[in-house]
Amino acid sequence: MGVKLYGIPLSTPTACVMTCLAEKDIEYELVPINLSKGEHKTPTHLAKNPFGKIPVLEDGSVTLFESRAITAYISHKYQSGTDLFRHDNVEEAAMVGVWVEVESQQFNPPADTIIYNLLVKPFIGQTTDQSAVDASVVKLGLVLDVYEARLSNSKYLACDSFTLADLHHIPYIHYLFKTPHADLITSRAHVNAWWEDISARPSFVKVAEQVDAFIPKA
Amino acid sequence: MGVKLYGIPLSTPTACVMTCLAEKDIEYELVPINLSKGEHKTPTHLAKNPFGKIPVLEDGSVTLFESRAITAYISHKYQSGTDLFRHDNVEEAAMVGVWVEVESQQFNPPADTIIYNLLVKPFIGQTTDQSAVDASVVKLGLVLDVYEARLSNSKYLACDSFTLADLHHIPYIHYLFKTPHADLITSRAHVNAWWEDISARPSFVKVAEQVDAFIPKA
Repeated sequence: MGVKLYGIPLSTPTACVMTCLAEKDIEYELVPINLSKGEHKTPTHLAKNPFGKIPVLEDGSVTLFESRAITAYISHKYQSGTDLFRHDNVEEAAMVGVWVEVESQQFNPPADTIIYNLLVKPFIGQTTDQSAVDASVVKLGLVLDVYEARLSNSKYLACDSFTLADLHHIPYIHYLFKTPHADLITSRAHVNAWWEDISARPSFVKVAEQVDAFIPKA
Repeated sequence: MGVKLYGIPLSTPTACVMTCLAEKDIEYELVPINLSKGEHKTPTHLAKNPFGKIPVLEDGSVTLFESRAITAYISHKYQSGTDLFRHDNVEEAAMVGVWVEVESQQFNPPADTIIYNLLVKPFIGQTTDQSAVDASVVKLGLVLDVYEARLSNSKYLACDSFTLADLHHIPYIHYLFKTPHADLITSRAHVNAWWEDISARPSFVKVAEQVDAFIPKA
């Protein structure tokens, strides 16, 4: 049995896992889940993820959900492709763990609020909460000030090699550039250079084409 | 150089790390950080965690922040005490990763909103946002419905052994019992039995005494 990924490229967590699978040179089948038809809430899907979300990964007899658990699993299990967890260096591996959590706890909540309100809500006919966006732009700016200092001393977030900590940011920043708040990235020299580097990785270039093919033209 | 933990038992993420260190039988020095005096924002502390938060762990030459990164690091590095990551069983280890992320992404945001609004805000002289509490009680209930089903088939969240996935919940649920919403736990038979089991672990009983010693009497 091969690897099956249930999800859609338009979903940022799915795009994270797709980028990770590409970095690790793993062949897989992408099984689309039609959210507007509620396919993520069917008994079949709920048996795979009881929270009714995407993505889900099947790898032989193992079924996983939660995108960061999936990317960590792939990074630890497969030796092929990029070593996204710096397994041979205890100190670097510890820093990968730290900066993976920084993305999850510090970067993601405000970034997700901005993207959800400015891109997703208009698309599904809901009203943008502008005060939530404004507060999140301030919060994200403070987080990125710390990134700017970090990236002036370190080529990537965890160490001088590209790791899972960098990878998890890519689909979110890709969407941030489709909002009026790209300057959160471009106004910070080291953050911007880091973004230009990580977004040009072949693993994401292909995923970006699939993401953008799904985005309705304005 | 031994292990140093910077933080206070009253902080849920610090209490998580303390519980983890106890499960792993690791001796450490707890270095208190006085938040009301702003000791987490001093240059000395910011050099350890640029986000100015607690806890921080120093283990020899390695300095880590973000509590979940710290507990994962401890669980992976030290062989002593409980095997919190089920290292010898690929499938169980994958499930630990999944349920650690469930705590982080599904359980924690609503639990933290309830605790912060009902316990922390009154303590620091801020006004409780009751509508945020109400919405979080509903959200957390839906998450705990999934836990109830899971725990009817599995003794613990990830597998039939106590792991990091269970441990991360303990300090939060300990506080939840100090709000009017303990019934979120007690009304669900399997969740309640799980809570009674995990909260009675000697690793947490000692931490709970330290947490409660810091809580101002009503």
